[in-house]
Amino acid sequence: MKNLNFEKTILSIHKEIQVKLKKTNKKIDNYIQSDVPLIPQLSSYFFNKRGKQLRPVLCLLSSKMINEEYSKLTSDISMAAALEFIHAATLLHDDVIDKGKSRRGQRSINDIWNNKFSVLLGDFMFSKSFQLMTEGQSLKAMESLAEVSGKISEGEFLQMANENNTSLTISEYLQIISLKTAELFGAAMKIPAILTKKSNKMIKQLNLIGLNFGMIFQIIDDHLDYFGTIKTGKLKGKDFLEGKITLPIIVLFKKTNPTEKKWLSKIFKNKKRSKKDFLQTKALLEKYDIESLSLKYANDLRHKSKVVLKTFKNQPSILLQELLDTSINRDN
Amino acid sequence: MKNLNFEKTILSIHKEIQVKLKKTNKKIDNYIQSDVPLIPQLSSYFFNKRGKQLRPVLCLLSSKMINEEYSKLTSDISMAAALEFIHAATLLHDDVIDKGKSRRGQRSINDIWNNKFSVLLGDFMFSKSFQLMTEGQSLKAMESLAEVSGKISEGEFLQMANENNTSLTISEYLQIISLKTAELFGAAMKIPAILTKKSNKMIKQLNLIGLNFGMIFQIIDDHLDYFGTIKTGKLKGKDFLEGKITLPIIVLFKKTNPTEKKWLSKIFKNKKRSKKDFLQTKALLEKYDIESLSLKYANDLRHKSKVVLKTFKNQPSILLQELLDTSINRDN
Repeated sequence: MKNLNFEKTILSIHKEIQVKLKKTNKKIDNYIQSDVPLIPQLSSYFFNKRGKQLRPVLCLLSSKMINEEYSKLTSDISMAAALEFIHAATLLHDDVIDKGKSRRGQRSINDIWNNKFSVLLGDFMFSKSFQLMTEGQSLKAMESLAEVSGKISEGEFLQMANENNTSLTISEYLQIISLKTAELFGAAMKIPAILTKKSNKMIKQLNLIGLNFGMIFQIIDDHLDYFGTIKTGKLKGKDFLEGKITLPIIVLFKKTNPTEKKWLSKIFKNKKRSKKDFLQTKALLEKYDIESLSLKYANDLRHKSKVVLKTFKNQPSILLQELLDTSINRDN
Repeated sequence: MKNLNFEKTILSIHKEIQVKLKKTNKKIDNYIQSDVPLIPQLSSYFFNKRGKQLRPVLCLLSSKMINEEYSKLTSDISMAAALEFIHAATLLHDDVIDKGKSRRGQRSINDIWNNKFSVLLGDFMFSKSFQLMTEGQSLKAMESLAEVSGKISEGEFLQMANENNTSLTISEYLQIISLKTAELFGAAMKIPAILTKKSNKMIKQLNLIGLNFGMIFQIIDDHLDYFGTIKTGKLKGKDFLEGKITLPIIVLFKKTNPTEKKWLSKIFKNKKRSKKDFLQTKALLEKYDIESLSLKYANDLRHKSKVVLKTFKNQPSILLQELLDTSINRDN
């Protein structure tokens, strides 16, 4: 791999689509306006840190990759903003569910105000995503986003139902992250093809690239929760403390000896886990070299996407390939 | 007024539209299916008590009132189910916000399980409403529902921002209930006209009837919280205990003498209110005959709707008129 990293690649992509990304953010700023002053006030606080904006970014990059008429198209901007609002709504509700105290390096809305504000602001963001989709004027694109919204809820439920479930299998884990995270990336990639009436084959291919990227993204997120360095203010060991069973732990369970397995199982069945438990678990992860084993899953997905991506040959497709490659080695 | 009551009228309306109401409920039952077992389990519990289903009922009744092709139309059924899902989602999130312990005469989901379940199930219901709307295949109908979803959030925020605000004016109160409740009824009434491409004039008229009905409905709801009898398991004095300022209290503030005003103001500024406070407040409401004064507002709205409704002359329009008339005197 060339001397690239994830953050630099995202910056290059932001530059590649900067005109439309700016318009997307302007649209977001317009849609959070309201006669009820609390709404723009809370929304501005939330969007103060824009984050990586991966969903709108993938949507716009995909649009540029497949459309010669890219610069004339405007519905992709509406859909990009809609994707960001769906994501924002799920984050706001996640913070209520997980009692999250920080978000994008600043205190979360539920922590500063309270849960009520987070629930209501999330609902407001859902409604805005919905208004933006109708602006896109494509029933088919709306159908796919509506379907994905349902899948996100299913994924969240499935994740909640499997907290502290030490028998969770890899395929169950992959199903959860596919529903709660990856499907929305799939939608982001394929929506521009739906808007411009491309072939079903192309729609499916783009969906698959997004889906794989989303899977990699979540696998690495879960990976970094054990193996990452504290950088962006994201607390490490969050999943562990919440009792969320993720890929490193599932793989670890397969490797440990009976005594270790019994200990690990007990730890995850407990109502709470301590920092000491976390350090002991990390020692086990190191003992069995789980770091490289769990990365293997992400790498396999990357190679699958490469095959599909090869069919496109332009600057956006090169950047997309770079994004996939560097997403494996990202450190925050 | 003839010897009618609200509940009997609703039964007559259910009978008038029974074929499509049954199909609507079947659709709702289909849409709560999921591979994640928790979802149908919780949803079935929630829909175990169907409630009055006023929003789908108004949608279907309006459809029958204005469409000669009523029996051939199916998109009204999808939209009726979508309306019920939006309403369900807001109830689930309201119960989190208000810490509600009972809903439709049974324990609320947040009370039996916890807030997480209510937040996630609400999100799931939103996503289903959204899928059902795309099934309706009318971008214009979707736009109006998307707009209303945003208004509901705004109304909820406005209500929350005005808790314990003893200076709330009648017009501010009417704005809150218009946004959080009445607009969805307006949408329910006008959507069948949008689906069948009726004139803008008719769309506006139907919206106004629904809007007025919704305003009356909420005014009476708030009225019954002070003057109603316990019947359906709804706790009386709920708004009072939560510090919600509603029409009876606003009107009372206008009538009381300075000493009473001071006391009432103090009571509402307190963090909590007792049952004794409630009884004292009720005594003041009786002293100034607020019961009839607050009903006057509902009655004025009823007369406004009558004028508009006169232009339709068939069985559904007669039933709708009955619904408006009896909604004033309903006792639960």
